[in-house]
Amino acid sequence: MDFKELIEKRQSDRRYLDKEVEDEKIRMCIQAAILSPSACNAQPWTFVVINDKDLVEKVKVIASDGGINRFAYKAPVFVAIVLERESLMAGMGMVIQDKEYRLMDVGMAAEHFCLMATELGLGTCMMGWFAEKKLKKLLNVPDKKRIPLLISIGYPDTKHREKQRKDFSQVCKYNSYK
Amino acid sequence: MDFKELIEKRQSDRRYLDKEVEDEKIRMCIQAAILSPSACNAQPWTFVVINDKDLVEKVKVIASDGGINRFAYKAPVFVAIVLERESLMAGMGMVIQDKEYRLMDVGMAAEHFCLMATELGLGTCMMGWFAEKKLKKLLNVPDKKRIPLLISIGYPDTKHREKQRKDFSQVCKYNSYK
Repeated sequence: MDFKELIEKRQSDRRYLDKEVEDEKIRMCIQAAILSPSACNAQPWTFVVINDKDLVEKVKVIASDGGINRFAYKAPVFVAIVLERESLMAGMGMVIQDKEYRLMDVGMAAEHFCLMATELGLGTCMMGWFAEKKLKKLLNVPDKKRIPLLISIGYPDTKHREKQRKDFSQVCKYNSYK
Repeated sequence: MDFKELIEKRQSDRRYLDKEVEDEKIRMCIQAAILSPSACNAQPWTFVVINDKDLVEKVKVIASDGGINRFAYKAPVFVAIVLERESLMAGMGMVIQDKEYRLMDVGMAAEHFCLMATELGLGTCMMGWFAEKKLKKLLNVPDKKRIPLLISIGYPDTKHREKQRKDFSQVCKYNSYK
């Protein structure tokens, strides 16, 4: 599968088969995330894999807190991404440039994870809306840290959907924004 | 090239050959970025390609403002990513969850761009530190908007470097952060 095929195939999968996910595959997805770039190579992330059956049940409740992400009830594995400190240089840039580089870094790493999962026949869905405080408590993450993303993973029980995207001319300009 | 090979090959390339980049390839990279996921499919991005020779010279100065990114003087093409408004739903989540989803979205799209560039034999370098106000003025971007990333693109004049990354055990935990 070339890259174009891979990114066409990747989609948010919200239904999963009742089939266990091999740990080896999860590790391959995390290895892919590790190879992601980051500002000043700070790698500001920790991946917490949740595959303990009791814990997964609790994460399902947390993921669907407030009525969002009810689909998560079908997911057999989750990965929470914890935001870590930036490097000194990236931290300086963050202040001077007023930019949270770390969120871009986490986005890239999460997408590496999901694309590798697609290549391995797995389905994923990234969630940014969940009961973060409860999740931190459950996973023993210090309260001052943040969990920007929670990813559900499983063998997908969905069909490929055509992507709905803005037109090229709407999002691409040459040499002037206007 | 499978995905693992592709992400091993992608690196920040800061030296480029004196060789023009075909517009068709730039468009393929942007098409790849367009297929990137985003919170509530908001697609909060505009890609501004800078390939006009006079403008490129000015962007080189802006990119290396303050002594950072001096390498940019060799880049034949740049793409600036302008941050656009989130969707209503993502905007609500942003407030309630106190998370800038859009930066994660832009990170994912930028990485799609760079990975496609790698597949096409191009080299890229993402920059988050540059004279943003000057760049906005040059590209006619409204002052209230942000440009989180500027990407340089060209045919690389570099060798493959082995990636320096934290150990797997340092960034991956199972079922508990501690």
